[in-house]
Amino acid sequence: MSYTLWYWPSVQGRGEFIRLPLEAAGIAYRDGAREDGVGAMMANMARHERHGPFAPPYLEFDTMAIAQVANILMVLGERHELAPPGMADRLWLNQLQLTIADLVAEVHNVHHPISGSLYYEDQKDAALQAAKHFRAERIPKFLDYFEAALTAKEGAWLIDHRWTCVDTSLFQIVEGLRYMFPKRMAAIEGDYPNLIGNHDLVAALPGVRAYLGSDRRIPFNTDGIFRHYPELDAA
Amino acid sequence: MSYTLWYWPSVQGRGEFIRLPLEAAGIAYRDGAREDGVGAMMANMARHERHGPFAPPYLEFDTMAIAQVANILMVLGERHELAPPGMADRLWLNQLQLTIADLVAEVHNVHHPISGSLYYEDQKDAALQAAKHFRAERIPKFLDYFEAALTAKEGAWLIDHRWTCVDTSLFQIVEGLRYMFPKRMAAIEGDYPNLIGNHDLVAALPGVRAYLGSDRRIPFNTDGIFRHYPELDAA
Repeated sequence: MSYTLWYWPSVQGRGEFIRLPLEAAGIAYRDGAREDGVGAMMANMARHERHGPFAPPYLEFDTMAIAQVANILMVLGERHELAPPGMADRLWLNQLQLTIADLVAEVHNVHHPISGSLYYEDQKDAALQAAKHFRAERIPKFLDYFEAALTAKEGAWLIDHRWTCVDTSLFQIVEGLRYMFPKRMAAIEGDYPNLIGNHDLVAALPGVRAYLGSDRRIPFNTDGIFRHYPELDAA
Repeated sequence: MSYTLWYWPSVQGRGEFIRLPLEAAGIAYRDGAREDGVGAMMANMARHERHGPFAPPYLEFDTMAIAQVANILMVLGERHELAPPGMADRLWLNQLQLTIADLVAEVHNVHHPISGSLYYEDQKDAALQAAKHFRAERIPKFLDYFEAALTAKEGAWLIDHRWTCVDTSLFQIVEGLRYMFPKRMAAIEGDYPNLIGNHDLVAALPGVRAYLGSDRRIPFNTDGIFRHYPELDAA
């Protein structure tokens, strides 16, 4: 089996939630648009016709193209035994993954509150207001929820004694928020020992550690979903 | 088995994407907060502790609480044979359902671009700008995608010869957009014969027809996700 991940080649974005578990599990994949360019990705998307994605990221294997992060992670979990066997656990993980997707959409909305087709600079006043509410209300609401989910008898992973795609996704949430809101995160991280402990465990996974030190990990930048604009941050 | 759907009692909102397939399939359920009040829902959410929802809607049965619309629909599909048997078809439907979830989040963002915790009136200038972009760019992008997905050899349903939860969800998208953007939808509906044909088929399902004529169907209003503010609409 051969996987190609298709995603915009210059940002972590939503693609990173797929790259991380692939790297953690040592699953071989091509990063399509980084190797072949955006034009190749566009041509490839069109080839899948009515079964194609609305937008990248999507994962191609055999003749299939699977889009939507949580959907892709479900496939990887099933095919590579990354997911727990019980249905109740799987549904709970999917629920958490979809809540992470909601957070990611809200993060993007902070710097693009009016429209994704306008530059940040052209909606900066609205973004300043959105960021204020997001820092004060939404970051604690989401992180409180994830912190409570991690209060597990089983240990520091969400489920049982091993990582799942939700652990790698929560790692990316912490990484992203630290990049985008360094002052805010420095002020509140102490309230989230479970979340930060989980983050550090993910960072120490051999596959993740090797990945983070490689040039396959695209640095955070102000074209992605998590963007550091100093004026949007405050403790 | 006994289902309780928990959702805000005065709006269709995200809960409607669950109510519709329950009604279409004739599955009995309690609408928890409409019968017992919001206080009962809050107390119930807290009881599920770390496995609880981030937010309504969620579906309770046995001892479980399943949150996130696409996750709930996956459970219903599996337990009531509403989903096709093949994994490729199921993944495709989940992909479409998650794309519908993205659209729903964007719709909410049109009237609340700055923050969900501010009144519409306090973010109206930004909403006017957001609506202009949403009408011109996002509605056609999403509807083009769903229209293409519905170009099926098998007939007017998305898959095979019967409805799935994605059909009832697309019905709700058309209903909601017609309520929120009557001028815009009147201007472009002719471009979407597959989508409107699918909508009409869903409306004619006996369970859906009975539901829409009952007081269980909460009327659209300006507290929900789809909100009709005339100033946000234009052809």
